[in-house]
Amino acid sequence: MLHSTRTRRAAVLVPILALIPVATGLVPDRGAQPPEPANRDASEVAARIVTASLLDGQAYDHLASLVAAAPHRLSGSPGAAAAVEWARKRMTKIGFDEVRLEPCTVPHWERGEVQSVRLTAPASVTGVELRCLALGGSVPSPEGGIEAEVIAISSWDELAQRSADVAGKIVYFNRPFDLALRSTFEGYGGAVDQRSRGAVEAAKAGAVGVVIRSVASAIDDFPHTGGTNYQDGVTRIPAAAISTLAAERLDALVARGPVRLNLELDCRWHGDAPSFNVVGDLLGTESPEEIVVVGAHLDGWDVGHGAHDDGSGCAHALEVVRLLLDLDLRPRRTVRVVLFMNEENGLAGARAYARDHADELDRHVFAIESDRGGFTPRGFSTNAGDEALAVLRELAAPLDEIDAGSVDPGGTGADISQMAASGVPLAGFLPDGARYFAYHHTENDTLDKVSERELRLGAAAIAVLVHAVADREQPLPRNR
Amino acid sequence: MLHSTRTRRAAVLVPILALIPVATGLVPDRGAQPPEPANRDASEVAARIVTASLLDGQAYDHLASLVAAAPHRLSGSPGAAAAVEWARKRMTKIGFDEVRLEPCTVPHWERGEVQSVRLTAPASVTGVELRCLALGGSVPSPEGGIEAEVIAISSWDELAQRSADVAGKIVYFNRPFDLALRSTFEGYGGAVDQRSRGAVEAAKAGAVGVVIRSVASAIDDFPHTGGTNYQDGVTRIPAAAISTLAAERLDALVARGPVRLNLELDCRWHGDAPSFNVVGDLLGTESPEEIVVVGAHLDGWDVGHGAHDDGSGCAHALEVVRLLLDLDLRPRRTVRVVLFMNEENGLAGARAYARDHADELDRHVFAIESDRGGFTPRGFSTNAGDEALAVLRELAAPLDEIDAGSVDPGGTGADISQMAASGVPLAGFLPDGARYFAYHHTENDTLDKVSERELRLGAAAIAVLVHAVADREQPLPRNR
Repeated sequence: MLHSTRTRRAAVLVPILALIPVATGLVPDRGAQPPEPANRDASEVAARIVTASLLDGQAYDHLASLVAAAPHRLSGSPGAAAAVEWARKRMTKIGFDEVRLEPCTVPHWERGEVQSVRLTAPASVTGVELRCLALGGSVPSPEGGIEAEVIAISSWDELAQRSADVAGKIVYFNRPFDLALRSTFEGYGGAVDQRSRGAVEAAKAGAVGVVIRSVASAIDDFPHTGGTNYQDGVTRIPAAAISTLAAERLDALVARGPVRLNLELDCRWHGDAPSFNVVGDLLGTESPEEIVVVGAHLDGWDVGHGAHDDGSGCAHALEVVRLLLDLDLRPRRTVRVVLFMNEENGLAGARAYARDHADELDRHVFAIESDRGGFTPRGFSTNAGDEALAVLRELAAPLDEIDAGSVDPGGTGADISQMAASGVPLAGFLPDGARYFAYHHTENDTLDKVSERELRLGAAAIAVLVHAVADREQPLPRNR
Repeated sequence: MLHSTRTRRAAVLVPILALIPVATGLVPDRGAQPPEPANRDASEVAARIVTASLLDGQAYDHLASLVAAAPHRLSGSPGAAAAVEWARKRMTKIGFDEVRLEPCTVPHWERGEVQSVRLTAPASVTGVELRCLALGGSVPSPEGGIEAEVIAISSWDELAQRSADVAGKIVYFNRPFDLALRSTFEGYGGAVDQRSRGAVEAAKAGAVGVVIRSVASAIDDFPHTGGTNYQDGVTRIPAAAISTLAAERLDALVARGPVRLNLELDCRWHGDAPSFNVVGDLLGTESPEEIVVVGAHLDGWDVGHGAHDDGSGCAHALEVVRLLLDLDLRPRRTVRVVLFMNEENGLAGARAYARDHADELDRHVFAIESDRGGFTPRGFSTNAGDEALAVLRELAAPLDEIDAGSVDPGGTGADISQMAASGVPLAGFLPDGARYFAYHHTENDTLDKVSERELRLGAAAIAVLVHAVADREQPLPRNR
């Protein structure tokens, strides 16, 4: 795993480049300066990266290319396979030193053709369809659907208290996303348990189906899908999300009297399928065996194009390396882009990576993931201990010039979190969060929702921090 | 102008409200707390305003209603008149104490039906249309257009050096918006002179027409209009903007050899027309004669719906007062919303306001304008002197909880700037600037480009600062 021949080539680049005279005149001398890690001024390097990304960045081109080649990338699907092939080619084109497909085994679930939540009582609304999406992983209903009375439940406590009333009914989990929370990620975290645990908890009490209010910050008619879980020994019941507008309508109906609905889904389960993480290395000049991971997930839901979730993260990660190559900023350590498979419904890629690279995780100096959309960068959140946190803050400080230099304790990324137990300091890219949960997991998550300038700023912010960590004389202090 | 009877009514509200018992239970007790200015904790007030806006804010409703009632609001047009009537009704519905239409005289220009920039040479591109919009205020071309050779000019120096070559030609001003600048407003400022001065400077050198590269941060096929100026004694020549994609194509053609094009516009000029600023007061409890202005402009271009420019600013301003009323946070001083007419092509409303209120400008304690779009708030820019700047920073500090508390010297707002000479401290609302100049003055500036959450956050940020200034024991130190 030490890539010795390639490493020597990378190291030899330095003196060769030093012989090329720097161009003078109006054109910035990007690309013509030899790397001199010890002498680089951090702010000057950061400014060069941001300027290059703003002027000539290709993050949006990566994203547009991905969503054109593989708009639907659910694990196990032909789209996911197309995305893997796309990523391999893109890394090669960018000029990564090594590109590998690393195998993993993923679940292969399909939405199917029918998904319907149709009111059947009271008479005044009979036949009205509520816009819905099956939750990822849901079992199908019987053909023709399940027809039952609705019981609205807004907390686990309420479910426990009313469990005697649940048998034979469709549980409607209606706790809203708390819009008053300043962090939309906290709002999401406070409601998503209904999606992940709802089918299990409702079935334990004898429910025949589950409908949830979409876990979303916007009030509109786009339902939001997302993974739901089952548990061995508990009946698997079908589960769907309705749009927030539909949920507000259903809330009003339920408040007035008994409501019944018909839930029909024809989801299919195809068992396990082979797939891949796509891994590309930009080898370090001095310590190529020490690795900084830049992660994102290549899979996505089967609705919309996953432009923000997580096409933008993939674009960010690829662009980090393209920028460093373009600016001749190859750092001391290896920068490894990992485009993980199966974040959305299983984390198979993340687990495979942590398992297959177990013997080199002690040389993973840092890992960062971008999985919160392609919006204006604000900073980073991290699990780093006090010592590493202080270093990260110092390294990110030059990003204050674009108001993106904050580093605070917080969540990092579902994929890289598999490395936490090995003491790898982790970080999550933190963009402006106002719009993410309006688009997340919907038909609406398409390229036109991504601002090219915002995406370029984000790629630059990540590149600045990654370069600084990978090029620092000392490795980042590890977590204990 | 002292509104004495109304003032007394407002002051009397306090003891009456104090008798109403505060509701207990799940519903927040918004609206039930009597105002106690001296005891309010600034952070608590700010948090209440932000929470109310995030949970139940109506900024987006104001905006949706405006663009439905008056999508095209160019000064002098029936749409602008509809917007005035809409604003008057909306202020009344919100519960402003006084609502007035204050007259001003505006120019009435119409785009007309024909606007075309068509290549006529070289032969390989003859007949190709470049997407364009007439610049606001442009004279028409003769019917059938003006056909002439193109001369590309990227600076005033170049125009001066090549002035002998300009006669009889169409000048193509092609200096790009500098994407590398961190502030897109600086990028705009560095290119917009081509739009405002181009027709005059080109005509002085004998040009027969002007085409400019759209002053825009995005590379796409939406041309951006905007006002152009003429000068007495200089021939008025027709002027249009082409999209940035069209500009890049034209740049490539011009680099290869002579290019000719046909510029046809049938703009019409209808002289002056009567119109109005719409002004609404929320009277202060203690010093109603002291005024804090919250401004935005009600007019907009005739393309797109002016959702960001400046429908969002109008929504912000209205929502400031609605929030303060809803939360029973009526401040000591009067908060006056001024929706100015004719910001885009004349500033007639701004001049009328400064003229007609000249005798009370010494009691205008502060004026703030929102005219940079409805994006996530980042802070404010101000012309305030050191003393007032320090106070504004202290008052805005509670907005750090939503990363919107910065106050820095900088531009404020075109309308309120008419009050600068009177020493009124001014500020401009400063949202995230990444997307504004992608939509500004285009068909693309529509409601779907505005995020409800971003708009609510912005309204809350302005409301917090306005409330703090209007409710402060001492007035803000004036500028000298």
